[in-house]
Amino acid sequence: MHILLCGQFEAGERELWRSALSAAWPRGHWLDEAAARAAPADVRAAVVANPAPGALHGLPALALVQSLWAGVERLVADPTLPAQVPLARMVDPMMSVAMAETAHWAVLSLHRDLFTYACQQRLRQWRQHPQRRADELRVLVLGRGELGRAVGRRLADAGYAVAYWARGDDLPAALAQADVVINLLPLTPATRGLIDARFLAALPAGAALVNLARGGHVVEADLLDALDRGHLQHAVLDVFAHEPLPADHAFWTHERVTVLPHVAAATDTRSAASVVAANLEALANGRPLAHLVDRARGY
Amino acid sequence: MHILLCGQFEAGERELWRSALSAAWPRGHWLDEAAARAAPADVRAAVVANPAPGALHGLPALALVQSLWAGVERLVADPTLPAQVPLARMVDPMMSVAMAETAHWAVLSLHRDLFTYACQQRLRQWRQHPQRRADELRVLVLGRGELGRAVGRRLADAGYAVAYWARGDDLPAALAQADVVINLLPLTPATRGLIDARFLAALPAGAALVNLARGGHVVEADLLDALDRGHLQHAVLDVFAHEPLPADHAFWTHERVTVLPHVAAATDTRSAASVVAANLEALANGRPLAHLVDRARGY
Repeated sequence: MHILLCGQFEAGERELWRSALSAAWPRGHWLDEAAARAAPADVRAAVVANPAPGALHGLPALALVQSLWAGVERLVADPTLPAQVPLARMVDPMMSVAMAETAHWAVLSLHRDLFTYACQQRLRQWRQHPQRRADELRVLVLGRGELGRAVGRRLADAGYAVAYWARGDDLPAALAQADVVINLLPLTPATRGLIDARFLAALPAGAALVNLARGGHVVEADLLDALDRGHLQHAVLDVFAHEPLPADHAFWTHERVTVLPHVAAATDTRSAASVVAANLEALANGRPLAHLVDRARGY
Repeated sequence: MHILLCGQFEAGERELWRSALSAAWPRGHWLDEAAARAAPADVRAAVVANPAPGALHGLPALALVQSLWAGVERLVADPTLPAQVPLARMVDPMMSVAMAETAHWAVLSLHRDLFTYACQQRLRQWRQHPQRRADELRVLVLGRGELGRAVGRRLADAGYAVAYWARGDDLPAALAQADVVINLLPLTPATRGLIDARFLAALPAGAALVNLARGGHVVEADLLDALDRGHLQHAVLDVFAHEPLPADHAFWTHERVTVLPHVAAATDTRSAASVVAANLEALANGRPLAHLVDRARGY
């Protein structure tokens, strides 16, 4: 089977993927963009990492687009991608573990005042804050998909009081009961800009936000305002409206903001290659494909 | 039973303890130092928080010294404390949970490069480092007591490759296999100054140290040297030779050092009061006392 491998890769990353995918599914004949353009009718599947709009246009035999990324909002929004071609998200068990680790680190840092102690170190200030028990911290996880549930399970195991919010639930009521909100929603027209002034005002004073999903969920000016007023105690942000975060952005130097460079959870090459291989094998044998995206819903 | 409550307390902390202890063991008649001096022969037990040397002298009926602290090196070293009086350490289940939380936070921070990302934020630098799996990180826990085992269990559950070192094991061999060393040893003549140039040289280049036990375990000049040379990648230090850490100490501003103000694990007033009550009840009924210190061994 001829498979196009395309998208945005860091230096050396494309070769890493190609060798992991070849090892996981030796039946594949892997093509780059130039090779695919030379024989477009041969391409049965595309394995993609956030490809540019139009990159999958003009492939008449295309029967599967398998994303290497969990977030597929750019693919869903690409009008040149034929509507009948099945589109699969990456659901990588190692990525769920990495996401749970990052969320746990953020919650531990907030729970045990470790961002405060980091500030104090810069001021050479020796001051102890009262120690709270994990079950005194109410954590609200936005999203009940693979990643949201992996994060929620890990935090509940560690003793935190975990609740979930998903589409259809009462959002202001959920927010009013949260000391920490962790965003793991997909980015869709319904969730874009969800974290705005009204959302933040519904949180109790002194709450914290952890955004591990997409920058497009947040109205950044509203978030800055809530932080400046001290209504929000802290924000841990892994994703931004513009990435890399521009050098002059207020988040970099804000004392209540922790900036991470989109590292909360990378796809693990080895485990993700197995996931891709399973879907290619299903395609080759005419069996049902896994992790298909509902394009109308957007995830 | 008349019980002396004495030692070093922060503002309001003595009253907090007194009310928690009274609630946990209503049969106690609690005395402060002045009341005990007025009727020294009545005092059957002393519940102490790091008392000054000599504070327990001249109490002829004293049958139990119960520490509110896990570390009892100052009590053991007090020559005025009669050798035949049983001395009990605090073994507080909530303190073990807090210690495991702090250790887990430190290991997550090292494993997922979060100290590096904090440095990068100060430099407005957007740069991603390769994501490692937890089982790629070898963590060596020094000490196999209550706290060491609580920390080791938590980290093993989270997927890290955990090993222990305790007295009698081959230390250089254990250190050579460690990416992160977490110190949870008691401070005794045998362990004082253990973490010196030779200890640090036995670690692989790029290893990290997490000291959650006592400042006296570390030769601070040797640690600074290993950090300056880059042999040690990072140190997370909760305890110091002199506390509060002096304002002019090099640790405060060292980019490879995280300073915490002795907050890794505080005794939890409520759960510790139950532990004290159980020992007082045992004393009153002539049953065996728990968590007794071997004074020759020092813990």
